[in-house]
Amino acid sequence: MEVCMFITDTIAAISTGTMGSGGIGIIRISGDEAIEVADRLFRGVSGKKLADCASHTIHYGTIVKDDKVLDEVLVSVMKAPNTYTREDVAEINCHGGILVTRKILDAVIDAGARPAEPGEFTKRAFLNGRIDLTQAESVIDIINSQNEYALSSSVMQLRGKLSEEITRIREIILDNTAFIEAALDDPEHYTLDGYGDKLAEDVDKCVDKLDSLLKTSDNGRILKDGIRTVILGKTNAGKSSLLNALAGEDRAIVTDIAGTTRDTLEESISLDGVILNLTDTAGIRDTEDIVEKIGIEKAMKCAGNADLIIYVADATRNLDDNDKKILDFVKGRHVIVLLNKTDVENVLSVEQMRAHTDFPVLAISAREQTGIRELSDTIRQMFFAGQISSNDQIYITNARHKNMLKESINSLKLVKESIENGMPEDCYTIDLLNAYESLGKIIGQAVEDDLVNQIFSKFCMGK
Amino acid sequence: MEVCMFITDTIAAISTGTMGSGGIGIIRISGDEAIEVADRLFRGVSGKKLADCASHTIHYGTIVKDDKVLDEVLVSVMKAPNTYTREDVAEINCHGGILVTRKILDAVIDAGARPAEPGEFTKRAFLNGRIDLTQAESVIDIINSQNEYALSSSVMQLRGKLSEEITRIREIILDNTAFIEAALDDPEHYTLDGYGDKLAEDVDKCVDKLDSLLKTSDNGRILKDGIRTVILGKTNAGKSSLLNALAGEDRAIVTDIAGTTRDTLEESISLDGVILNLTDTAGIRDTEDIVEKIGIEKAMKCAGNADLIIYVADATRNLDDNDKKILDFVKGRHVIVLLNKTDVENVLSVEQMRAHTDFPVLAISAREQTGIRELSDTIRQMFFAGQISSNDQIYITNARHKNMLKESINSLKLVKESIENGMPEDCYTIDLLNAYESLGKIIGQAVEDDLVNQIFSKFCMGK
Repeated sequence: MEVCMFITDTIAAISTGTMGSGGIGIIRISGDEAIEVADRLFRGVSGKKLADCASHTIHYGTIVKDDKVLDEVLVSVMKAPNTYTREDVAEINCHGGILVTRKILDAVIDAGARPAEPGEFTKRAFLNGRIDLTQAESVIDIINSQNEYALSSSVMQLRGKLSEEITRIREIILDNTAFIEAALDDPEHYTLDGYGDKLAEDVDKCVDKLDSLLKTSDNGRILKDGIRTVILGKTNAGKSSLLNALAGEDRAIVTDIAGTTRDTLEESISLDGVILNLTDTAGIRDTEDIVEKIGIEKAMKCAGNADLIIYVADATRNLDDNDKKILDFVKGRHVIVLLNKTDVENVLSVEQMRAHTDFPVLAISAREQTGIRELSDTIRQMFFAGQISSNDQIYITNARHKNMLKESINSLKLVKESIENGMPEDCYTIDLLNAYESLGKIIGQAVEDDLVNQIFSKFCMGK
Repeated sequence: MEVCMFITDTIAAISTGTMGSGGIGIIRISGDEAIEVADRLFRGVSGKKLADCASHTIHYGTIVKDDKVLDEVLVSVMKAPNTYTREDVAEINCHGGILVTRKILDAVIDAGARPAEPGEFTKRAFLNGRIDLTQAESVIDIINSQNEYALSSSVMQLRGKLSEEITRIREIILDNTAFIEAALDDPEHYTLDGYGDKLAEDVDKCVDKLDSLLKTSDNGRILKDGIRTVILGKTNAGKSSLLNALAGEDRAIVTDIAGTTRDTLEESISLDGVILNLTDTAGIRDTEDIVEKIGIEKAMKCAGNADLIIYVADATRNLDDNDKKILDFVKGRHVIVLLNKTDVENVLSVEQMRAHTDFPVLAISAREQTGIRELSDTIRQMFFAGQISSNDQIYITNARHKNMLKESINSLKLVKESIENGMPEDCYTIDLLNAYESLGKIIGQAVEDDLVNQIFSKFCMGK
């Protein structure tokens, strides 16, 4: 007789980031022996063993290795199943030095734990059924989120809002599939007469819902990674002053964007919580000279991939052909026209500018830093149309989810085709089940081990 | 009638380091309203208020600001007096992203806490009497410690071992002072006849103890900051190979040393837990040419401040005058002679080398990486003579402590002089009290606010 056992080994990692020192460092231990492992090192002032302590309690003492005190610590004892991983968890809360946390982790490993892989705690939370895959994926998005909208969307996802929506759609698909199969098995009790119409209606409903989820993915990318923004403008229009005003110390976080090409300069700034990834192209710098030659072409190529084009016009000069050409070229795009230098005497008014374009025109003074708030509001309105402030909006921020949504929509469209072509009902079920499966992959039903490993390998250590 | 009240405002900071992301972020709140402030933001799954929870318990829920969930969190509730600060403490344990921790800190500040100064939590632990100043200072040393000896020494200090020693010496001084004053006040009951001898004996005992503490400060500096090491050697003796062997990936942590001059290259490596700060001087590179000129002078100047000189000789060449000159020049210093290239046929044996010098001579092969362990053992023996592995050794690693030890020794030596010169007994007490006060400053008795502020300003945020 064979006995099948499910053993979870005990894992440990530093959970507080290993890049710098802080006041507190945490070594997290999870698994069947987590509390036992901690007990092998912990000398509590109360003298009580951690294993004998109630769940969700905190204990003061020292970590002792080979009769040597490594640090004074607090240990949190959390017993399964109400823990991050659904396993027993002990967290050693020590002084946050790089060496001391590493020494304690070493001691924990020596005491019987194994070093955790990146993301392995969250992976266990998923494998043990505490959270589904969208929730697990949201954890790393929360940690990496760079603006409050992305954070808010990831928290929504962590709280299961995306899963709920996906699950509702899957239920509709499953109900229909089940009915068709039942009717094919048992035609005496179930009839499929006229069922095509009812199914078509349900499929349309599902496709609509999936489509609107899919549509959020553009905003989702913008939320997560920022708005690809190009600033156009003639020489002396005040482009640099605008850049400086936007990057002003009080409002901006300026960072390098990893992975961007080095031949164009990119700067990432946070404008009231919205990330703008600004591209500075060399070609635009001498617009006046270059417009007639290759300048516009180069600028347009760069602007071609942009989510947003900010066009800076100069209020102290009349519009010329260059301005008009540029405004023509960017038609149909997300464009904001900034009329700069409105703090000094000027020859071009907002009204005159508006006569030449349908894009929003804002008066600013980059030098005096006026109009920046209006720019920020306009960007927010343009991309998020107010919806983003709502707590209930789900955004697709994950490329994997986007692909699975597309696949499921394709499968459902095949179902529609089959209905329209009068195919026999048993043809529907294959595509219905494909859609069901694609959606299942989003929430982590029926996903292969490889995918799970790949997803969690993107995590940071200790999570 | 005036009412005097001691109000502690509630402070908060991110305690997990703000340089990078990690799995867990902690926002620590301390003060009279700490738990109330946390309650204003926390929605526990149990529905229970944190204020109604037992001390040292952990609670799962969300942080909600303006009806918006900022993150799922665990909150640790620790009630005065058994906390880090001896005040009420709440720690919000969230996902360790930079933005999410900052957002939660902002919410905590809005809910009524004030941003903590660097080190302010530990300062409160000191001001509230939980730890003395040596213990408080050891906290930042633990966080910054770069090798296990420094860590171990700081943990000893945190556990009060230095304070105990200082307190014992202060008691001896105070007893004597009290007796002298009592005798002067009440000569009928107390006699000072022959008291000078007894006092001289006690003072000698104290000076001895303080002297031996002071003597540890050299090793203390080495422990904390590393051994200033200069490698000397003729061209082609294998100095670079040795550097590479020492800095080999498996054993070394190579870091920049902050604050060193940039015109000489310094590298810091950890050799089995002992930090060597290696200085690479341009002048030494062409020793053979330069020896006759200014080379030795320059090398010696550099070696003059070193704790350790490693002299690399070449086993494939006979000793020449340059070697002998160098060995002469470094007499009386901590020197280790490495006979390199012992992996190939050689003309100079360890025994021959030993005939020319009393310094330890070790055979190594930098290329084959043999002999490195022996070098490490010899360094350890030379500087720590085995004592450092002992758990009970106190090291003075703090310049402030060193100065106060010197001052107290000076005061006690003045007492000895007064006794030897037959001065009246009331002359002793001034110097005794000075010594008592200097020692008090080490543990934080009778220190001025300015000093306290200065000490804690060196702390990291959130501690």
